[in-house]
Amino acid sequence: MSKGLPKRSEDYSLWYNELVKRADLAENSAVRGCMVIKPYGFSIWEKMQAELDRMFKKTGHSNAYFPLFIPKSYLSKEASHVEGFAKECAVVTHYRLKSDPSGKGVIVDPEAALEEELIVRPTSETVIWSTYKNWIQSYRDLPLLINQWANVVRWEMRTRLFLRTSEFLWQEGHTAHETKKEAEEETIRMLNVYAEFAENFMALPVIKGIKSESEKFAGAEATYCIEGMMQDGKALQAGTSHFLGQNFAKAFDVKFATREGGLEHVWGTSWGVSTRLMGALIMAHSDDQGLVLPPKLAPIQVVIIPIFRRDEELEAIRVKAGEIMESLEDLGISVKFDDRDTHKPGWKFAEYELKGVPLRLGIGPRDLENQTVEMARRDNLTKSVVQLENENLPALIKKTLADIQENIYRKAHAFTLEKTTKADTWEEFIDILENKAGFVSAHWDGTEETEERIKEQTKATIRCIPLDQIPEQGKCILSGKPSKGRVLFARAY
Amino acid sequence: MSKGLPKRSEDYSLWYNELVKRADLAENSAVRGCMVIKPYGFSIWEKMQAELDRMFKKTGHSNAYFPLFIPKSYLSKEASHVEGFAKECAVVTHYRLKSDPSGKGVIVDPEAALEEELIVRPTSETVIWSTYKNWIQSYRDLPLLINQWANVVRWEMRTRLFLRTSEFLWQEGHTAHETKKEAEEETIRMLNVYAEFAENFMALPVIKGIKSESEKFAGAEATYCIEGMMQDGKALQAGTSHFLGQNFAKAFDVKFATREGGLEHVWGTSWGVSTRLMGALIMAHSDDQGLVLPPKLAPIQVVIIPIFRRDEELEAIRVKAGEIMESLEDLGISVKFDDRDTHKPGWKFAEYELKGVPLRLGIGPRDLENQTVEMARRDNLTKSVVQLENENLPALIKKTLADIQENIYRKAHAFTLEKTTKADTWEEFIDILENKAGFVSAHWDGTEETEERIKEQTKATIRCIPLDQIPEQGKCILSGKPSKGRVLFARAY
Ligand SMILES: [Zn+2]
Ligand SMILES: [Zn+2]
Repeated sequence: MSKGLPKRSEDYSLWYNELVKRADLAENSAVRGCMVIKPYGFSIWEKMQAELDRMFKKTGHSNAYFPLFIPKSYLSKEASHVEGFAKECAVVTHYRLKSDPSGKGVIVDPEAALEEELIVRPTSETVIWSTYKNWIQSYRDLPLLINQWANVVRWEMRTRLFLRTSEFLWQEGHTAHETKKEAEEETIRMLNVYAEFAENFMALPVIKGIKSESEKFAGAEATYCIEGMMQDGKALQAGTSHFLGQNFAKAFDVKFATREGGLEHVWGTSWGVSTRLMGALIMAHSDDQGLVLPPKLAPIQVVIIPIFRRDEELEAIRVKAGEIMESLEDLGISVKFDDRDTHKPGWKFAEYELKGVPLRLGIGPRDLENQTVEMARRDNLTKSVVQLENENLPALIKKTLADIQENIYRKAHAFTLEKTTKADTWEEFIDILENKAGFVSAHWDGTEETEERIKEQTKATIRCIPLDQIPEQGKCILSGKPSKGRVLFARAY
Repeated sequence: MSKGLPKRSEDYSLWYNELVKRADLAENSAVRGCMVIKPYGFSIWEKMQAELDRMFKKTGHSNAYFPLFIPKSYLSKEASHVEGFAKECAVVTHYRLKSDPSGKGVIVDPEAALEEELIVRPTSETVIWSTYKNWIQSYRDLPLLINQWANVVRWEMRTRLFLRTSEFLWQEGHTAHETKKEAEEETIRMLNVYAEFAENFMALPVIKGIKSESEKFAGAEATYCIEGMMQDGKALQAGTSHFLGQNFAKAFDVKFATREGGLEHVWGTSWGVSTRLMGALIMAHSDDQGLVLPPKLAPIQVVIIPIFRRDEELEAIRVKAGEIMESLEDLGISVKFDDRDTHKPGWKFAEYELKGVPLRLGIGPRDLENQTVEMARRDNLTKSVVQLENENLPALIKKTLADIQENIYRKAHAFTLEKTTKADTWEEFIDILENKAGFVSAHWDGTEETEERIKEQTKATIRCIPLDQIPEQGKCILSGKPSKGRVLFARAY
């Protein structure tokens, strides 16, 4: 199965595309820019969703559902929002088809034009804040802590599976608060939820930071983000959390009676992660053999492969495998026994490597005789023989899965550190971007003009101003003007 | 809260609309025909989803995700499908907006017209079968058992919250099989899953049957359905399962290499339930005080309300409530303690009645003294005092919740039976529909003409030919022509 998977070192981009397809994660559909998420890929996304949903609920949020369509005029209500989002959108203009008078197929019924066109939501602030207007009257209605799992559409000219597609799946949280302080705290709380999810579940180390003015969400006062480093030295924004100030409350006239008897606009936040996380997960850990999945997000954590020639051998192995499966399931470990006789063991080994199953157990007639099992780790491709008489296999497997989770994180963490470099001159800056890639920590004068010039000259953007930035006087890498601290640059997805 | 909820007997339709809004289930949005599902309503839908998803997986299905948009030409590929679905659809014709030259807001960019219009999916057979063509080559790829949770759009002129909305949420299963027999078995298997879910979780008795030719799904060979009876005597179709034959396989040229070395079209099924189930759940059980939820689908199964005047009283009650909550949570029972001091106990009683919480516990200072708790059942509105010294409260609550689940089902079952009447003459038929409503079991000559005439004259449709129909010679209620068995008529949602 993994035969012919391109090498990362030769063509990283091709490697990614082929891996996504061959590991049955996703594929392009006949509709430009829209992907099909295949069952195996979707089962990973479901594991992500389940964990994020649990974290959202634990922090007091409820799910709800808002309309797919947004009246065109809504987009214009928040001045900067319309600049950012009323561009590449799918626009619904008609509500009926009719038979083509020529007798072939169907055509759009010209008599069924909508009075006002509808936009397929690129994000839901406008439709949600227009609803909040009716839900919020008093401080007693606050905070309002809502999340929605939904599909959104942003028309993209160049698309890549998971990373940039015209339609994608995401969650969008939209909250309303009494005070600026509470909304700011919520913004940071959800940024931390995302970082915790990325690090503990995706095994992806991330930098928490704040976006520059030019990169912030259209309609936000401030955009916070988590940024991860991919194996090709490009950064990937894995989640954003926006402090909206009173912008949408003012645009949609959402006021509340305060505790003191006044009437004020509420304070808002919004925050989201999307199927883009699938791209990050794949690119951060996988290798030339295929996917490498952290056990906490692997739909199949352990696969058992029988090695047999004759049917009696398979039957004996099946009994042993059944015992192991039951003991693993008791520990909450998901396990699959692949007893297909249509494929050879070697083929199966390659297939489960391609699909990133963290642990593989091989059992042959010899193993039955010797009371052993061969255990192979996907993360470091090492094998070991387990003596069932001496070792408690389920406990060993549980521990090994935890080790794998940790090892994948440790490796990615070391890589991220290794790919983070300080630059103090423009020459260094260019040299790092060209020859080493990764994050470049450098001084910037804080102006949009310089940011734009750097982007034009190097394709590197300011990924973020890290939250743990140490104040440091310095000179801008390009303009030489004074700077108050380093920011993180990188070429990015 | 329940103050002023209209009575079912006076205006059933108004009662339903008001109940949906006041119990915080859903509301109309600013976008015509699209609803907002509010957090409380959505939490019920989530419970439905979780259980259905578990049932689908247990029967071997995996989830996946297919594009929201369907190229217009796809709809025409299956001849009868296009008749049924290429009508009231949301049509995307453009992919960009631009600033209005007048300076006000945004307009659709006339230069960004799509070459081929895209239809927002009304159902996904076409886009899914065009994908299956690439996924299926050999019998080894079969059966293909896939489900998708998604939003769909069917432009509706007259909408009602949950029952008929332009956008709704649903799941759609799409399977492919080697043989006709296997596909037929799958169709019935999923019909049974739906019936089991309706009866065991929604506490909704349903009739399983097959649709008449004129009512079957556009593109199916046969449509099976479950039909439930609402309190106003109207039927509601709660789920459908379609045997597609080879229709979509032929339309999209999906063939497979058979075990015998031949090449054949695969056999298909599709099946779905939607947020319409929320409407059925509400209408089947609720009363003039509000929602009545079967405990298995209630987001809050038990609410504890403290009855207090002074803060010290609340503190003492809080300790007791904490103990009870912990013991209930250990049993997997969801419980809420409403200690708000902004509302009086009586107001809270009415609120949780309105929201259908199955069990309410009231605890006051007297109860603490006497070691008692007042327990009130939502289903029959009875109250009892529980002596904590004599009774094991958590076990009693668990048993009572099971009783409530059963009682709600039993009541709905008796009602459905009571509302199912045989008619042998046209006069009887009319009389029942006018004065008693419900299902009318009557002979029909099997022709579409007669079916249509009955519909025109009475607004009653053939809900289904029940699967457990007993062959019985008879005469058609309208035409007098020979009939082989009774079918179920009703006015329906
Ligand atoms: Zn950042
Ligand atoms: Zn039926």
